[in-house]
Amino acid sequence: MRNLNESNITEAVLESFSATSDDRLREILGGLIRHLHDFAREVNLTEEEWMKGIQFLTATGHMCDNVRQEFILLSDTLGLSQLVVAQNNSRPHSATEQTVFGPFHVEGAPLLPSGTDIANGRPGSPCFVQGRVSAQGQPVAEARVDVWQSDGDGFYDVQDSDWKIEETSLRATFITDANGCFSFRSLLPASYPIPTDGPVGAMLSATGRHAMRPAHIHFMVERPGFDRLITHVFVEGDEYLESDTVFGVRSTCVGNYVRRENERAPDGSLVEGPFYTLDYEFVLDPVRTEVSHG
Amino acid sequence: MRNLNESNITEAVLESFSATSDDRLREILGGLIRHLHDFAREVNLTEEEWMKGIQFLTATGHMCDNVRQEFILLSDTLGLSQLVVAQNNSRPHSATEQTVFGPFHVEGAPLLPSGTDIANGRPGSPCFVQGRVSAQGQPVAEARVDVWQSDGDGFYDVQDSDWKIEETSLRATFITDANGCFSFRSLLPASYPIPTDGPVGAMLSATGRHAMRPAHIHFMVERPGFDRLITHVFVEGDEYLESDTVFGVRSTCVGNYVRRENERAPDGSLVEGPFYTLDYEFVLDPVRTEVSHG
Repeated sequence: MRNLNESNITEAVLESFSATSDDRLREILGGLIRHLHDFAREVNLTEEEWMKGIQFLTATGHMCDNVRQEFILLSDTLGLSQLVVAQNNSRPHSATEQTVFGPFHVEGAPLLPSGTDIANGRPGSPCFVQGRVSAQGQPVAEARVDVWQSDGDGFYDVQDSDWKIEETSLRATFITDANGCFSFRSLLPASYPIPTDGPVGAMLSATGRHAMRPAHIHFMVERPGFDRLITHVFVEGDEYLESDTVFGVRSTCVGNYVRRENERAPDGSLVEGPFYTLDYEFVLDPVRTEVSHG
Repeated sequence: MRNLNESNITEAVLESFSATSDDRLREILGGLIRHLHDFAREVNLTEEEWMKGIQFLTATGHMCDNVRQEFILLSDTLGLSQLVVAQNNSRPHSATEQTVFGPFHVEGAPLLPSGTDIANGRPGSPCFVQGRVSAQGQPVAEARVDVWQSDGDGFYDVQDSDWKIEETSLRATFITDANGCFSFRSLLPASYPIPTDGPVGAMLSATGRHAMRPAHIHFMVERPGFDRLITHVFVEGDEYLESDTVFGVRSTCVGNYVRRENERAPDGSLVEGPFYTLDYEFVLDPVRTEVSHG
């Protein structure tokens, strides 16, 4: 273990981990070390570049707190998040596709009755969402639907410096009824830049990439007996559908947000000015259970 | 750019960076993305494992402050630091070898006259260090020698919670005289565990690795016209020379710390009890300059 050079060090490091009792941990660390070392050798990383990397990771860590997750942003913008989502969610063709979770979900959003207005006075055009959860053609009742989205200016409530979970906006949880349905009133989401005031923003700027995501509403649908669905419903026609900075667009997840005016809203109310409606069906994937043929 | 799956996403991500105007940045990011994606595919990383990775990196970032650098510790314990040092410092056989920088160096250590006692009352056996800096058989005068080391209990001064740069111990800067010499009185360094109260300690513990480094004194020697030397002088006989947790031992950097008793110290003083002496020659590598043969 003395006098390790750039060629023989990888085997020595792998050997140092050989006593790891958790096989999966040893496998993951082994793959990580081989690729990390191969990367450094391939690009012939200099000490100065290595130090810039250390500083980048440190700044990324310092940007993280309980409502800002810069490492998830980094993973998203490097395509790692979507790769991991894709390789873990090969769903039947009929089921709604998964996409990235994103950094703006918050645990503990309020459980609200269908029809609730969750905009809480934030800016944007009214949007009435009617969702239906089904599987194999049948409605799924009592599914838990977690919803979170930006306002019409492209901001999530957690991006306010004085955000509190008790005064949350544009995020809520609903339970589907006997027909698998839920509904709420919110705002038409806007395309928005991911936060660019941190290291990830500096990376996008240094590489000439834009920071934009196409407009979408996030949905997480859970029901025992079904694979948990984490998805977005994107806004048809958004100019960033082809260049989402986090690589998360699925064609099957583009929804038809219909612009309306001088009509009654789906909840029967009269709305001043234009508004939007979205009808979308979320198709769950029944969990494949092991059947014993003993 | 829609519907990216685990196979075609890598090319899409590389394409998104294709407008990077800095060629070297594009090369490094390209290599990083390919290896990061290949790693995730090879080990078939799950979403839960990905989230643990995000949490590990976040905790590592939160552990970093102006005197603690957990990402350097991580790089050191994964062998990346020594790999980068090795591939950037192929020195002539005659020159002293480089090794890892480590996380405990501090800018601005006091410039002191040769012979100064830098122990400042910390625990350990006295150690008198006499160094000589040379190149191609000739002394190198006016070299700047930055020194930092642990005490006899294996702790650096910056590990004290109330550490201040004004009250520094076991770190100093010296200037070589006309004969290339410098000297100081300090303490025999001890082998020590790298800090284990953070994510890196958790990793070592989970993988059954010890956290120990063999005892050493750090030296950084700088003089215009020569390649900057960053090295350690390890203590001959240390039990961790073959299993240094940061993979940094070079055989040529093991010094002969001689135990003495009932002798006068090199500075002529009488020392109570046993003490140690180290004589070591640091051989610099003249900077290879481009010579025009026009």
